[in-house]
Amino acid sequence: MAKIAILGFGTVGSGVAEVLTENNDIIEQKLAEKLELKYILDVRDFSGSPFADKMIKDFSVIENDPEIEVVVETIGGAKIAYEFTKRALLSGKHVVTSNKELVATRGEELLQIAKDKNINYMFEASVGGTIPIIRPLKDCLPANRIDEICGILNGTTNFILTRMIKANLEFSDALKEAKELGYAEQDPTADIEGHDACRKICILSDLTYGRNFSPESVYTEGITKITLEDAEYAASGGYVIKLLGRAKLRPDGKLYMMVAPHLIKKECPLAYIEDAFNGIMIKGNACDEVMFYGRGAGKRPTASAVLADVMDAVRHRKARKNIYWNGSGNDMMADLGEHIYPMYYRVKSSSAKIGGVYKIACLLGESPDECAFITEPLSGNEHKERLGLLEKACGVLSKIRVLED
Amino acid sequence: MAKIAILGFGTVGSGVAEVLTENNDIIEQKLAEKLELKYILDVRDFSGSPFADKMIKDFSVIENDPEIEVVVETIGGAKIAYEFTKRALLSGKHVVTSNKELVATRGEELLQIAKDKNINYMFEASVGGTIPIIRPLKDCLPANRIDEICGILNGTTNFILTRMIKANLEFSDALKEAKELGYAEQDPTADIEGHDACRKICILSDLTYGRNFSPESVYTEGITKITLEDAEYAASGGYVIKLLGRAKLRPDGKLYMMVAPHLIKKECPLAYIEDAFNGIMIKGNACDEVMFYGRGAGKRPTASAVLADVMDAVRHRKARKNIYWNGSGNDMMADLGEHIYPMYYRVKSSSAKIGGVYKIACLLGESPDECAFITEPLSGNEHKERLGLLEKACGVLSKIRVLED
Repeated sequence: MAKIAILGFGTVGSGVAEVLTENNDIIEQKLAEKLELKYILDVRDFSGSPFADKMIKDFSVIENDPEIEVVVETIGGAKIAYEFTKRALLSGKHVVTSNKELVATRGEELLQIAKDKNINYMFEASVGGTIPIIRPLKDCLPANRIDEICGILNGTTNFILTRMIKANLEFSDALKEAKELGYAEQDPTADIEGHDACRKICILSDLTYGRNFSPESVYTEGITKITLEDAEYAASGGYVIKLLGRAKLRPDGKLYMMVAPHLIKKECPLAYIEDAFNGIMIKGNACDEVMFYGRGAGKRPTASAVLADVMDAVRHRKARKNIYWNGSGNDMMADLGEHIYPMYYRVKSSSAKIGGVYKIACLLGESPDECAFITEPLSGNEHKERLGLLEKACGVLSKIRVLED
Repeated sequence: MAKIAILGFGTVGSGVAEVLTENNDIIEQKLAEKLELKYILDVRDFSGSPFADKMIKDFSVIENDPEIEVVVETIGGAKIAYEFTKRALLSGKHVVTSNKELVATRGEELLQIAKDKNINYMFEASVGGTIPIIRPLKDCLPANRIDEICGILNGTTNFILTRMIKANLEFSDALKEAKELGYAEQDPTADIEGHDACRKICILSDLTYGRNFSPESVYTEGITKITLEDAEYAASGGYVIKLLGRAKLRPDGKLYMMVAPHLIKKECPLAYIEDAFNGIMIKGNACDEVMFYGRGAGKRPTASAVLADVMDAVRHRKARKNIYWNGSGNDMMADLGEHIYPMYYRVKSSSAKIGGVYKIACLLGESPDECAFITEPLSGNEHKERLGLLEKACGVLSKIRVLED
């Protein structure tokens, strides 16, 4: 018999309680022992909930209960969640979380505490929601040099971009729909500005390259400037626009890291990841391209990943996972000015005026007073220089990176 | 320092030697110890190979060398491979394999020996080539009731079906091309008749449902009867034809299991798995749909999966994986006559003649002397009955299952 506590009875926390209850037989059979939910900590009242008898408000009850082996942290944020996680680990309890903000910003410290206490801090649900990615990256591809991680890591923005194309919506209308459907929060900043995706690409890079990549050091660009016109021009050339989190290894061992919208070719498997789904592509020097696909968020899907970690922690009570990262990764990060890629532009001019500034690799559309095109591949620094010239020559309406081959 | 031996220096075995050598630094860093290839067993001579000094022909050298901790079996087939695997396990060595035939037919017995000896028999590479699937299914989704496994499990047939559509080739021409490119063997029977996919869906079902599903008990239909016309009619209706290995759980706990070509809608993520790639979709009652994508075969991709198992075996020398299945699964298999799905037909007649036999859900195309259509969903038994009537009424040119919603 193993007993657990859940911190925070929001979407994910209540999903964990629900799935654990519903699938208890399956879980017990696979674990070869019972898994019991003993406490749920939340400041709010849930007197009508079927879990009302487990609700408590005082964390020290959990901290001081020697029966609790695993604490599930689904509070979110990096304040109370940080305090409780630290206290739970220090009291010798495994901690399982879906909290990407906390893992991305405090993971190094929390993993060190877990190591010192010979327990585990686990976060399969922090990236890609239900998608198995942390464990596969660590346990299934360890014989590879990982050359690239490239993922659609945020379901909200992918839903918005999908709806823009499929339902001909402007960004603001697609965002409104996402809010109505519960895919976007009332304050959607962390999603639409790319911060959420940034935390996730940092966690994947931390894990892969063994260093701590802090979100604030990574170039992050959201999707708020993408217009319906851009999506339509992209489609006419066989491209879709996706918000990608990327870490790309250079031959010298440095990494290009970024979160930014990209035009990607329809032939790329990531192009088919639609709505609120996530997709994560890993390129290794032995495995070539592998991709993982599934729901990036949601109550029960995220609970599936959380419970996998809980079961793993129980099954291997005395075994430490080989998961850690040490020291800042800042010196591993390459200057994005050296990264070479094509650029998409929409400008207030006919294509005739572009020739002096850029070689056009693909003209996507042209009307008397505007045109959209993809440039030859150039370095970030060169693009910056030519953008200045382009702005002088005709006025730039949009610019979006194009995923290089 | 851990020492290993490879049995069989074919495509996969030589890939393991190559990747292990090339990525030795990465592997050593992740393992925190050296991994050394000590022997390669093969009856053939490889005197010019860079691994010539490791070549031996006598298995008992490996069996009796206490330094060898892990044996990699990449001989294939279920004869010598079976004998050597059994002897290696009995002598207390972990065995890692890519041999789906052996795992599907003798897995139960070999896993029992491994259990008795407190060591591991591991086979991540036996399904989906490089794709992480065995470990994710076992370790990342254990809190789910798995409702369906549906996969493109054979790269050769997927390459052929892709080429038929993309290059307008008849089956025989696409098969010829697959042979020329090394995607199909000289005797392609096991691939094109579905036997290879059948072994793989059996392994995934064994693992998921804990019973032994033997390939000869599973309905298996290959792709040799698919014509270019069928592929074109399917495309005109927004479908692609894919060879699927399926296990679908009924509410009563029984499984529909089969390998058969299916028309699947272009909206299904499996529709985008092209060429020699594999894709495996898992549906769980918490995770919903997750999909895994990657190269289903090939020297280095398969070696990536083999080496993940080798590293796992070394890292957890004394820990037994919780992998086993016991007892025949035959009584869990549901009668396919009860399975309800639509059917695609191409017949020698206009659609006017069909009405008496089938309700047409979607007419895909019609000429004076032939038509192609998709029926309403009916049970396998009803389809069988109506097929007889259809044959009498007009002559059936093709019939293919349609993946139900």
